Amino acid sequence: MDYTKFIEEQIAAIRQTVGDAKAITALSGGVDSSVVTVLGHRALGKNLKTVFIDSALMRQSEPQRVADRFASLGIPVELVDAQDDFLAALAGLTDPEEKRQAVTDTFYSKVFSRLVKESGAKFLLHGTILTDIEETVAGIKRQHNILAQLGIDTQESYGYAVIEPLKTLRKDDVREVAKALALPADVYHRIPFPGPALATRIVGEVTRQRLTTVRKATAIVEEELGDSGAFQYLAVLLNDRATGIRHGKREFGQIIVVRCVQSTDARTATATELPWKKLHRICDRIITEIEDVNRCLYDLTGKPPATIEYI
Amino acid sequence: MDYTKFIEEQIAAIRQTVGDAKAITALSGGVDSSVVTVLGHRALGKNLKTVFIDSALMRQSEPQRVADRFASLGIPVELVDAQDDFLAALAGLTDPEEKRQAVTDTFYSKVFSRLVKESGAKFLLHGTILTDIEETVAGIKRQHNILAQLGIDTQESYGYAVIEPLKTLRKDDVREVAKALALPADVYHRIPFPGPALATRIVGEVTRQRLTTVRKATAIVEEELGDSGAFQYLAVLLNDRATGIRHGKREFGQIIVVRCVQSTDARTATATELPWKKLHRICDRIITEIEDVNRCLYDLTGKPPATIEYI
Repeated sequence: MDYTKFIEEQIAAIRQTVGDAKAITALSGGVDSSVVTVLGHRALGKNLKTVFIDSALMRQSEPQRVADRFASLGIPVELVDAQDDFLAALAGLTDPEEKRQAVTDTFYSKVFSRLVKESGAKFLLHGTILTDIEETVAGIKRQHNILAQLGIDTQESYGYAVIEPLKTLRKDDVREVAKALALPADVYHRIPFPGPALATRIVGEVTRQRLTTVRKATAIVEEELGDSGAFQYLAVLLNDRATGIRHGKREFGQIIVVRCVQSTDARTATATELPWKKLHRICDRIITEIEDVNRCLYDLTGKPPATIEYI
Repeated sequence: MDYTKFIEEQIAAIRQTVGDAKAITALSGGVDSSVVTVLGHRALGKNLKTVFIDSALMRQSEPQRVADRFASLGIPVELVDAQDDFLAALAGLTDPEEKRQAVTDTFYSKVFSRLVKESGAKFLLHGTILTDIEETVAGIKRQHNILAQLGIDTQESYGYAVIEPLKTLRKDDVREVAKALALPADVYHRIPFPGPALATRIVGEVTRQRLTTVRKATAIVEEELGDSGAFQYLAVLLNDRATGIRHGKREFGQIIVVRCVQSTDARTATATELPWKKLHRICDRIITEIEDVNRCLYDLTGKPPATIEYI
């Protein structure tokens, strides 16, 4: 595939479709939305509004880091603080499906739909890829009809239109396009990170305090395993507690699970056989650097029957 | 220390104290109660009644295995089915301290006290060791005044007396006494197993079904790690569930933690660096042989800050 040609064609197509109107896109920092943002920016310049929605569910410094990264590429990103919206929607929820749904609904129906309306944009750029469409058709993923998710039923009445420049590509191709666009390597080599973000890594209720705990553990795991060559690595905060003893006193602490897997396409995965020295070091850091955590477990399970994430 | 002499002295002392009266002892299968049972039997013959209380919390086939083992040594053991008493006491409890207390209370105040009264015994043989007394004095363990635990306050009025033949010994000495008594090696080399048994290995409520799950996992771990040379190895059933995928369908399964530690005295411990092949094999067996379990985690944490058990 000729990626340079693909890029030129998509830029031309976006320009032709949007004309002098305004478009908007939501950047997450993942490779799909990053590529769409760059294509949109090259096509439309300042007629593209790029927002990064801070859901409170992102990793350490992630919103600012993504915004800075794109600013350095000459693409302005508006950081939107929607932390309270997401935390309010998640309060009291413990069922995994309900939590995922709450994140999706808050993102599309509440926060992004408001931003779209306020922006005056008539076009939405969206990073849908071929696999998303296939999985939606197969019933594995919920639908990717973004207009419906935004609560916009009648495209004709309101004049909204969705542009999906990557809908014919698979992930590998998107990475090649990113490379051809001269995006930094850490954008297209980024380990997978799910849409509902850290909400998928908290068993039980998602609260500001519990997010702080899993965020710290995630930072340690990413720091320690950044050069592991593994497909994906992450930290999960369980809801259970277990007994422990610290400074001679009995305590009842929280539990972090470290997960690190080998995989080619995320459809199957096996637990990485990490060096024991590395496992001990990660465990030591987690139980000493994170308040109230006194256990660290390593997930041995492959996919199937486990999934990579916990929610 | 001269263990043969110790044995002779204790047998003579028990015989002298009890005379022609009857005595009773509760055998758990652990080294302390096994040694006390053999000493008592040699001293008193059929004037010693030995009971094994089946609390529903024991490991696979454990009550029958212990009874058979002592029967083959010529020591009759009465199996007492108290499963319903323990399960009723544990129903609805999730707090670790409350669960431990419920097991202790049911054992002493309800089941064993009834057996003592029914037996007509005036003497109780009990496997208290020096460490128990020291830890009780230091406030680490709850008190070991067995008469109070049996709800018997006035020894004078009722004529009950407790005999503690091992109260001057530490665990290592007890093992030597077991050896000198020609007890089988698997009695004195048995890995530690806590008094509240499998109740310490279930996070959340202890039910018959959840006991079945952790009992199967325990059997697999003990079978696979029997020759590991580790100080202790066990399986824990968490209360949390995580998503999984089996036969193309999303499921929400249970989680087993495997724990295996190196230690000399249980006061400190480190996670054993097991071969990956062994870890994968244990995980595979757990997720295929046990219904409703789709994750297997390995505990990396040392003691402190974790304890060896989870409750």
